[in-house]
Amino acid sequence: MLRRTYEGQDCSLAHALEVVGERWSLLIVRDVLLGIRRFDGLLRELGIARNVLTDRLNHLVKHGVLERVPYQERPLRHEYHLTRMGRELTPVVVAYMHWGDRHLAGELGPTRRTEHIGCEGLVLPLLICTDCERPVADDEVTARPARQSGRRSR
Amino acid sequence: MLRRTYEGQDCSLAHALEVVGERWSLLIVRDVLLGIRRFDGLLRELGIARNVLTDRLNHLVKHGVLERVPYQERPLRHEYHLTRMGRELTPVVVAYMHWGDRHLAGELGPTRRTEHIGCEGLVLPLLICTDCERPVADDEVTARPARQSGRRSR
Repeated sequence: MLRRTYEGQDCSLAHALEVVGERWSLLIVRDVLLGIRRFDGLLRELGIARNVLTDRLNHLVKHGVLERVPYQERPLRHEYHLTRMGRELTPVVVAYMHWGDRHLAGELGPTRRTEHIGCEGLVLPLLICTDCERPVADDEVTARPARQSGRRSR
Repeated sequence: MLRRTYEGQDCSLAHALEVVGERWSLLIVRDVLLGIRRFDGLLRELGIARNVLTDRLNHLVKHGVLERVPYQERPLRHEYHLTRMGRELTPVVVAYMHWGDRHLAGELGPTRRTEHIGCEGLVLPLLICTDCERPVADDEVTARPARQSGRRSR
């Protein structure tokens, strides 16, 4: 089995990928975002092996992305809800979908359209600068060390 | 070896993950975005096995995320540049980093700060609606089928 951790990588991107970077994890988050909350529903939608789905759900619960909420008492049955932390993955999912739409959708075009609930407008990802408050182009972003520490910074 | 494809998943997110969703791929994109373009530099920064780095770079070149650009003639040596498609992954990388910063950074705080080049302001990901032109909260996004087709839509 592949390791889940990125040793020597002290970076928020690596930490994020340790939580949701594994095969299928972000697709599970997508489906829960879209309202598919039960094990059997996810199993059907994703078409993956039962043990893989169980493993990924346990990992996402353990790391605070999903929580188990009972929907039936006898026998006890749970569904999966996004925590606030999990819901805050929405910009990651939308940014990925938009990138896939632009570059990989094929001649039929994208299968899904991300919409603003109520307004039905298309939702797009944007980078903004908190200082000048302007949109930031892809080639206007860099990353600098944010703190001094004895640990490796990358 | 794990499969790279998500069979039955006709979704831009799944297609995107087939290109950059494998272990280490997005960290390679991050490093090239930050200016590390040569094989040995990436090998040093990432601390991964040479054959894994070779495999990931070949995959990213094959799918149009990176391109090889010669920087030396004798012997011929290449460096890796992001294509326009590759550079457009910036919002994905920034959204992931921001999420990791918020939820996983630990008590020392994030190691890196995404900055607006020139202005030095903090760069953050935002979702906007192209209709009403307002920022969209994480719980105001949904996805609807964008086209009719005979293929599975999820």
